[in-house]
Amino acid sequence: MSVTAPQGFEAAGVSAGLKSTGKPDVAVIVNRGPRDTAAAVFTSNRAQANPIMWSKQAISDGSARAIVLNSGGANCFTGSFGFQTTHQTAERAAELLGIGAIDVLVCSTGLIGTGDETFRTRVLDGTERAIAALAADGGERAAAAIMTTDTVPKTAVRARDGWTIGGIAKGAGMLAPGLATMLVVLTTDADLTPEAADAQLRAATRTTFDRLDSDGAMSTNDQVTLLASGASGIVPEPDAFGEELQALCLDLAAQLMRDAEGASHDIRIEVVGAASEDDAVVVGRSVARNNLFKTAIFGNDPNWGRVLAAIGTTDAEFDPYDVDVTINGVRVCTQGGPDRPRDEVDLAPRDTHVLIDLRVGPDAATIMTNDLTHAYVHENSAYSS
Amino acid sequence: MSVTAPQGFEAAGVSAGLKSTGKPDVAVIVNRGPRDTAAAVFTSNRAQANPIMWSKQAISDGSARAIVLNSGGANCFTGSFGFQTTHQTAERAAELLGIGAIDVLVCSTGLIGTGDETFRTRVLDGTERAIAALAADGGERAAAAIMTTDTVPKTAVRARDGWTIGGIAKGAGMLAPGLATMLVVLTTDADLTPEAADAQLRAATRTTFDRLDSDGAMSTNDQVTLLASGASGIVPEPDAFGEELQALCLDLAAQLMRDAEGASHDIRIEVVGAASEDDAVVVGRSVARNNLFKTAIFGNDPNWGRVLAAIGTTDAEFDPYDVDVTINGVRVCTQGGPDRPRDEVDLAPRDTHVLIDLRVGPDAATIMTNDLTHAYVHENSAYSS
Repeated sequence: MSVTAPQGFEAAGVSAGLKSTGKPDVAVIVNRGPRDTAAAVFTSNRAQANPIMWSKQAISDGSARAIVLNSGGANCFTGSFGFQTTHQTAERAAELLGIGAIDVLVCSTGLIGTGDETFRTRVLDGTERAIAALAADGGERAAAAIMTTDTVPKTAVRARDGWTIGGIAKGAGMLAPGLATMLVVLTTDADLTPEAADAQLRAATRTTFDRLDSDGAMSTNDQVTLLASGASGIVPEPDAFGEELQALCLDLAAQLMRDAEGASHDIRIEVVGAASEDDAVVVGRSVARNNLFKTAIFGNDPNWGRVLAAIGTTDAEFDPYDVDVTINGVRVCTQGGPDRPRDEVDLAPRDTHVLIDLRVGPDAATIMTNDLTHAYVHENSAYSS
Repeated sequence: MSVTAPQGFEAAGVSAGLKSTGKPDVAVIVNRGPRDTAAAVFTSNRAQANPIMWSKQAISDGSARAIVLNSGGANCFTGSFGFQTTHQTAERAAELLGIGAIDVLVCSTGLIGTGDETFRTRVLDGTERAIAALAADGGERAAAAIMTTDTVPKTAVRARDGWTIGGIAKGAGMLAPGLATMLVVLTTDADLTPEAADAQLRAATRTTFDRLDSDGAMSTNDQVTLLASGASGIVPEPDAFGEELQALCLDLAAQLMRDAEGASHDIRIEVVGAASEDDAVVVGRSVARNNLFKTAIFGNDPNWGRVLAAIGTTDAEFDPYDVDVTINGVRVCTQGGPDRPRDEVDLAPRDTHVLIDLRVGPDAATIMTNDLTHAYVHENSAYSS
């Protein structure tokens, strides 16, 4: 059910011919209220797609009634024609739904530079047909319609205290969020003010999607949107809602990690003993982005030297000669020197755990990443995105 | 002739058993004077190998008589035992050469964490045998002895106004210098003071080795050393010497780029129209480190969207919607929008030129990098380094 699991939402996904495969490529999700609360976080990439520019304006008042998403074209760097396409998409949806265009968010994903007349015609046509197909059980079809190189749709639902949160996500490459990430739509029937929705969304994404760094490449089109219908009639206890929202985001982020392009290992880089949470994130991300570390894990090589060489490039607080590294439970490096033999480490399982103890403070963070494989190179050299 | 082309130098390269292949792995280069001027720049990685720590101390007085280099082991993160190995290497060389240990620099390269008793015995033995084999034409043998995953030795010589500069370099992976890069030894018979040598070396490396970023992974063992014998008796005109030293460093840097692990394209990312040289470097490096751009070039795909997505992550001064991108002479993006069709770009040649015009100022810089290929993944997953 995903985004239609909470009360007050309808969704649809249709094929509009944007994907050459004929698979679904336009999704619409509508919040039937009574509330129209909305919040969103956006990519921090300065190169921003037209739908990002539109959605930032549309959400500035803390409300939205609908969101239109397309795969098969990013509508990024397509000039004023591309922006008009986004604007017309919002207007067309608004007209059919009987609301204002400013209450319609738009998201696009696919090849940068794609957004010509054919694209516009198909997006507008797809929007019409998706709205005609809106259904209270349409969440799964919406999830399928936003997929690009994803091999499986990503959905999640959590419920508590009479309210429900649902979500869909897409993203398998160009996966290194800044302030936001990928395309994600979260819905809830909890009764939230715009301020509460914004605060909850920022808190949840900061420690989930923002800690995912599959390939170090930040997208131009990332957007995570939360729509709250209030249809349950329940104002949630903030901590409880925050817990569930964070758990749901973490679930979706882990699904994204597991389906990352060409990956053969899902790697959790857990940094502990840091002087600050920021330091832990910086250290974890430096390892996650190190191609030599990533290829070593692909080769089942517990190469702790590459871990230390990566973290040595950061300005985090630590002494390189007082750092411990444990890979899949075997401490291969103690205080910057060899400890257990490498061959005790079993890297055959897909799930990989790298524990880095900086030994200077109480703070910690975990970055989710993947290995760098032949399949990643193949997928990203053979296909444009 | 490489490092023995200038007057006053002897060199040797021998096999000491550090490489399992039996290939040469210990090199010694000696400056017979009359001058003993020396300067060096070192990796800015905070994770520094034992020979880096030693050489920084040894060169602090601006003089050195000899340099011992080994491949087959980085002697990094090998604790105080490893530091003693480096110290003993300098002492052994000094004793045999009749000089002070503080006038002997040491460089190591190979697998991080390698530096046990066997390593020590072989390095000391190799040092002895190399010193016994020192010859006025030993430069090529020294160049071969410092190779790791390099497929060819890298050497260069330039002469002018009665003085000569020679150089050797190694490095094919973990190739993203900070303040220094790889292992490089430069020799000259020009008469230089320590201050002049230091200034010339820093100026030359800043725009050559420092602009090479093959795989974004910074080494723990990088060192570029300049030894000046003064044997020509000529104090060079500073600008002329600077020009030749820069040209020689650029030549060696280009050789490193061409031999980078698994690469199929040598890519020059030329950034022009920048508000400052620093901005140009930041923008060029962001593209050089973007795995999606690198895989696209491997796939002969002139994917300018990935170029813009990469530079959008920087804080350099520019408007993403006023940037031009030209790939191998074809302007595929003008002012942040599509220009010439992608299929006009011929990416079959190994030499690839990406020109990014930020259109905000007069400054420029060129970053040298490579594509990301199956062979890179294979080499770095199948072999430890």
